Amino acid sequence: MSGFQLLIDMNYEDTDAGGVVYYGNYLAYMERARAAFLRNCGYSLTQLINDHQLMFVVSQANINYISPAYLDDRIEVGVDVTTFKGPRFDVYQKICRNDEVLVTAEIKLAVLNSQTRKPTRVPDFLRQACIL
Amino acid sequence: MSGFQLLIDMNYEDTDAGGVVYYGNYLAYMERARAAFLRNCGYSLTQLINDHQLMFVVSQANINYISPAYLDDRIEVGVDVTTFKGPRFDVYQKICRNDEVLVTAEIKLAVLNSQTRKPTRVPDFLRQACIL
Amino acid sequence: MSGFQLLIDMNYEDTDAGGVVYYGNYLAYMERARAAFLRNCGYSLTQLINDHQLMFVVSQANINYISPAYLDDRIEVGVDVTTFKGPRFDVYQKICRNDEVLVTAEIKLAVLNSQTRKPTRVPDFLRQACIL
Amino acid sequence: MSGFQLLIDMNYEDTDAGGVVYYGNYLAYMERARAAFLRNCGYSLTQLINDHQLMFVVSQANINYISPAYLDDRIEVGVDVTTFKGPRFDVYQKICRNDEVLVTAEIKLAVLNSQTRKPTRVPDFLRQACIL
Repeated sequence: MSGFQLLIDMNYEDTDAGGVVYYGNYLAYMERARAAFLRNCGYSLTQLINDHQLMFVVSQANINYISPAYLDDRIEVGVDVTTFKGPRFDVYQKICRNDEVLVTAEIKLAVLNSQTRKPTRVPDFLRQACIL
Repeated sequence: MSGFQLLIDMNYEDTDAGGVVYYGNYLAYMERARAAFLRNCGYSLTQLINDHQLMFVVSQANINYISPAYLDDRIEVGVDVTTFKGPRFDVYQKICRNDEVLVTAEIKLAVLNSQTRKPTRVPDFLRQACIL
Repeated sequence: MSGFQLLIDMNYEDTDAGGVVYYGNYLAYMERARAAFLRNCGYSLTQLINDHQLMFVVSQANINYISPAYLDDRIEVGVDVTTFKGPRFDVYQKICRNDEVLVTAEIKLAVLNSQTRKPTRVPDFLRQACIL
Repeated sequence: MSGFQLLIDMNYEDTDAGGVVYYGNYLAYMERARAAFLRNCGYSLTQLINDHQLMFVVSQANINYISPAYLDDRIEVGVDVTTFKGPRFDVYQKICRNDEVLVTAEIKLAVLNSQTRKPTRVPDFLRQACIL
């Protein structure tokens, strides 16, 4: 649907003593890519909080680890929006190295009012900025 | 089944600017608890690699985020072994603060020969040390 | 002077592809030990902020890396208070594995009013709880 | 001397509950910038290890924290080589947001043979690729 991609170079901080990228770090790369996707649509996380009282909180993450990334790999972290309406922002995120799929994940986020921390609806202006 | 628990105190490094523990960090706490569980059974990860050519690699993680942890919380990270035979080591991990469930996860790990990186069977000595 | 120590087991999250503990992580272990030291004196960071409008911010860190820690090492992270008066909280922190010194650091922290973020003096009650 | 800069956007993973970028993370950004600097000179860390048996290990880090970075800030992480001969690779690293200096550091690295882990000299080809 959206097809946004963020490139990230793997450094020592990303790897572990098994010689591969640490499995727990991929969730951070996916969040980095979601934030870059929103900035690319014209809205930083800070703007959404300050100007529109909007924040996103992950409620579920289902991750498949297919093949490891290594030091000095350049990985592509994709963001495909699957749902962006009502109080839901769901994405499918695929992480690749060249044409090889390394990790896939379905991430479900709740859309919250940043002051009340209660669910709220995705506003139309954001939906239009992000989807079309 | 096993009921092992590791206590972890939340510090600044664990939190983010949303004022809560960063969602990506829970996978590290779960791995910390799995390693402590194995040490408690008598086998460190290093011993398993060096003496028995055994390592574990996460192949799938399904995580539910129910309620956030905060700075200075003491969380309990549980390890319940659901499968530990053949080439599979699957666990159910529940993270609580007092009696409140914060995060639950089903983690599937592959058992690998650490030299060939190919699937191998859980040896009986480890199964018996960990399950009974 | 104080001699407080926190024990930390090194897991995969702590290490990098060089096979050792990642150099950037030691600052987090030192902060973990400082927070444990304060809790041990009777005051959590959250209590100090909420009840006394006190927070600490690192202004300088001079670190010597002498020898690396490895996966499954149990390290001892020390906290020795060198200055704790006026607007200054300075500590000397030594990280060891058994009797071997791995990392040493001089860390200078500013004492701030958590609401104004301006320097303030260490209150006597805290000084007495921590030093004696 | 060199003037290499890496831009990094600050995301939730980078921040802590104090509302600022976590002090321990800056060492990782500096290492990320050093690796990018070397890649930019034509040599990845992996190439240096595999093809030239060369690696770098931090022996000392002296860090000054002047002003904090925040969520969504774009920071510039500089690399200025101060010594790159014999067994030493020393750099001065300045982190800025626009024209404001946030963090400065003097980082001393030892040049090691990656197989023996003993000190070795910076080879001329690398010196020339990086300095001129």
